[in-house]
Amino acid sequence: MSERKPQVLLIGFGGVGTIVSYTLEHLGRAEVTVVSRPETYDSIKSGYRIESCSYGIIDNYIATNVVKSTKEGYEKYGPFDYIIITTKNIPEISPVVDFLEDCYHESSTIVLIENGIGIEIPIYRKYPKAIILSGVSLIGTTLYEDTVKHIARDIIKFGAFINYNLDKQMQYDRCKHFLSLYSNDNNFAEYEENVKLTRWRKLVYNTCINTTCALTDLDFGRMDLFGGMESVVRPAMKEVVAVAKSEGVEIEDHVIDEMIRGEDGVYYPPSMLIDVRNGNYIENTVIISNVVKYAKRNGVPIPTLTVLDNLLKLVQLRTGEAKGRFELPEKRPLPEENYQIQFKY
Amino acid sequence: MSERKPQVLLIGFGGVGTIVSYTLEHLGRAEVTVVSRPETYDSIKSGYRIESCSYGIIDNYIATNVVKSTKEGYEKYGPFDYIIITTKNIPEISPVVDFLEDCYHESSTIVLIENGIGIEIPIYRKYPKAIILSGVSLIGTTLYEDTVKHIARDIIKFGAFINYNLDKQMQYDRCKHFLSLYSNDNNFAEYEENVKLTRWRKLVYNTCINTTCALTDLDFGRMDLFGGMESVVRPAMKEVVAVAKSEGVEIEDHVIDEMIRGEDGVYYPPSMLIDVRNGNYIENTVIISNVVKYAKRNGVPIPTLTVLDNLLKLVQLRTGEAKGRFELPEKRPLPEENYQIQFKY
Repeated sequence: MSERKPQVLLIGFGGVGTIVSYTLEHLGRAEVTVVSRPETYDSIKSGYRIESCSYGIIDNYIATNVVKSTKEGYEKYGPFDYIIITTKNIPEISPVVDFLEDCYHESSTIVLIENGIGIEIPIYRKYPKAIILSGVSLIGTTLYEDTVKHIARDIIKFGAFINYNLDKQMQYDRCKHFLSLYSNDNNFAEYEENVKLTRWRKLVYNTCINTTCALTDLDFGRMDLFGGMESVVRPAMKEVVAVAKSEGVEIEDHVIDEMIRGEDGVYYPPSMLIDVRNGNYIENTVIISNVVKYAKRNGVPIPTLTVLDNLLKLVQLRTGEAKGRFELPEKRPLPEENYQIQFKY
Repeated sequence: MSERKPQVLLIGFGGVGTIVSYTLEHLGRAEVTVVSRPETYDSIKSGYRIESCSYGIIDNYIATNVVKSTKEGYEKYGPFDYIIITTKNIPEISPVVDFLEDCYHESSTIVLIENGIGIEIPIYRKYPKAIILSGVSLIGTTLYEDTVKHIARDIIKFGAFINYNLDKQMQYDRCKHFLSLYSNDNNFAEYEENVKLTRWRKLVYNTCINTTCALTDLDFGRMDLFGGMESVVRPAMKEVVAVAKSEGVEIEDHVIDEMIRGEDGVYYPPSMLIDVRNGNYIENTVIISNVVKYAKRNGVPIPTLTVLDNLLKLVQLRTGEAKGRFELPEKRPLPEENYQIQFKY
């Protein structure tokens, strides 16, 4: 009888999720149960083609199990050793903590391969004994229909969001165990004890470049050539560095210059710009609003981030209306009516 | 022999220009020569239908003269008593001062019915003896093909941008003369000696609301209902009031609340939003960049306006690229190449 392999529940099976799943399974190190939305179930169940710069061409990758809900996954294959979440993180639309409702077990370690800051807090609030790992990923991978094009190698840092209710070492060990499943010769998976540093460093980029590109409908290259790096992004980045510092995270000055230079010779649309162009929700809450929240709490002046954040909140509501999240009266309500938007979800 | 009527050269024959022309001509007070672009010449020459909330239905209004260039206008009908400009004011694309090159005569009074601040400066720089009148207009009027729909009455204030090289009283008198041609029972044309106050008051609106709506692709009503008035517009308005003050213009606090309330029950897209939606250039230089320039000169902190201004500069360049004002290399230039955009105009 063979040893039971680590069982993984994976929520989010797009470009990133597919590579995560394949990474864990292809060397026989773990078994993945993918949670699929009803409309993609058949497609995931019959397999995706993967064209990977690291793993080569995989004609048809089918995850070990595919289920239609976290509940079904838990009942059939749970409890899980790891619950990995690779979805976009949009708390006001679909809170990540809600995904855990039907599949979390105290033996499970949660792995958040997601952007942003403060993303572990709602989970710790509901599950004070949870172990949560942070995955900060730099990867280029996109799902088109049933083909995943993986064009830039998987560089990822894992660490534990420390839960102070639990033994620290145990959390470090759990993270190292996960890394032993994930790391291989074809990716660059690293252990990073200082999760806050990793996350804040990535925010220096995301909070400033993604937002500016999204608001101006310009890709990274154009925004740079048009002067936006110096006029908007650099002041914003300095503010992020100051907020990080107020949170006890020292980011060296050269990080800003490195991120601004962008040496790769492609114009490159950041994810938030792609979301806006496709009329999709953006991850503004975890990428910028939470930074603004920390800044306010710590008394750090952030004039640039404040404006970017407030503009993006308006953009998110524009998307909400377009997606039918609410309807406005045909005639504009007058101020004295104190009209309140009625959200459907 | 009848007295020679005042001769007017009109540059800009859109929604506003048509009403201005009709206003001056329909009581026989002046003769208007319209400068048309080649592509609209036939259409203007054969007349526009005007559906006006103030003047009723005019089946076919044809201006006295229509010419294809300022040069042709000057040679055939000049010199003019008044040269009225109602075009959009976009100095980086088509400087208003250039329009005067072939039609200005020292006997002419220039009338700028345009938005923004600092719009007279380039003209005074080139024509130090010029007399320039300011027209600040609140009007709802739009040209569709060859029909002008005039839906909100013409409320307009005229005053002289004082040229300190010339006698003040003479400039006031010139303005009053123009007003005597323009004012009638169907409009609300007023003499306003304090041109700076009128212009800065309008900026409190335009600099903040137009820009925020344009950047978020939201009309006035939605931007308000979504919270943008308090989060972006009000802070921006306070900054405009402070800049005005540094320029010696006192705007009372209640002006902000009046402008924010917007009592009219329509969602209303401001002109800058319409321009962005149509892929047209925006008047960001005269509406916000010049305000930023004054603020810097006078040492007024304007964190909100700075970000809005810098974002809109990027938007303007995006439009420029789309309109073929420049082309970027297919491969993004690397930072060390120090690539400079080559503008075609």
